Amino acid sequence: MKWVMKTGIFSVAILTAGTGLVAASSSGNTVPYPDGYRQWQHVKSMVIQAGHPLHGAFGGIHHLYANGKAMQGYKAGKFPDGAVIAFDLLEAPVADNAITEGERKVLGVMHKDSKKYAVTGGWGFEGFVGDSKTERAVGANAATACFGCHTAQKQKGYVFSAYRE
Amino acid sequence: MKWVMKTGIFSVAILTAGTGLVAASSSGNTVPYPDGYRQWQHVKSMVIQAGHPLHGAFGGIHHLYANGKAMQGYKAGKFPDGAVIAFDLLEAPVADNAITEGERKVLGVMHKDSKKYAVTGGWGFEGFVGDSKTERAVGANAATACFGCHTAQKQKGYVFSAYRE
Repeated sequence: MKWVMKTGIFSVAILTAGTGLVAASSSGNTVPYPDGYRQWQHVKSMVIQAGHPLHGAFGGIHHLYANGKAMQGYKAGKFPDGAVIAFDLLEAPVADNAITEGERKVLGVMHKDSKKYAVTGGWGFEGFVGDSKTERAVGANAATACFGCHTAQKQKGYVFSAYRE
Repeated sequence: MKWVMKTGIFSVAILTAGTGLVAASSSGNTVPYPDGYRQWQHVKSMVIQAGHPLHGAFGGIHHLYANGKAMQGYKAGKFPDGAVIAFDLLEAPVADNAITEGERKVLGVMHKDSKKYAVTGGWGFEGFVGDSKTERAVGANAATACFGCHTAQKQKGYVFSAYRE
């Protein structure tokens, strides 16, 4: 599972989505799809290109969106329960010296609930494949597929991104 | 002025900002700074790289943000008075196979007021330099520096961008 954590977080997790879904449902820890996240606050963006260690999992252009409670968290450095951060990853085709936005690859979600997700720093992690609101890429594998990397950010509430003014 | 329209919209306009400011003020057509635009709806993003014909003016990563009336416009195809679109252009440094967001280069603004800006399709155009809310890059040169290109988009209300779901 080490390789998954380093280079193929979502893409590899997809391979085990069947099992993951069952496990997630039976444990009751299913992270909800973040309805309306496109209307949330745009936090920041980044493009991950070929050759980057995370290109297999996160290659493309991504935007982070935060709900109101997550914005409180970015400002306070501590995220309250109910905070949700959406990681919107799109293809990033390059043509004529410009990078544009293509199809959605995956919508990553971090959902704060200190009790429900206590084993992963109080955050539930999920990835919704493409434009699907139901096809899950992480399921019960959040501890290894997501938290393995996010745990390094403990001092920042397990969150990598920072709000760009 | 033809070269300005094709390759150096904001950067060249900056050179004439002094004159522009006076003219804009005296005509009363000063486009207001779009306070709070970072909390507006994120419309779409794009990266313009070296070699692109607009790199001189718009090189970097840009995000478009729309206020409520501009969102009505994107959906209806016709922008009501009061619609404001912000074009947030940041440096886009490339390192370790990733493109991140750097300093703000210019904040472009389109502000709809059919009467006030009748000569430029009902849109007022301005560019605020860097993080400044007062240093203007367009001033009285909107017709040549901005509308020259935007006029090609007449069928889409003079707007280039489209809302990405």
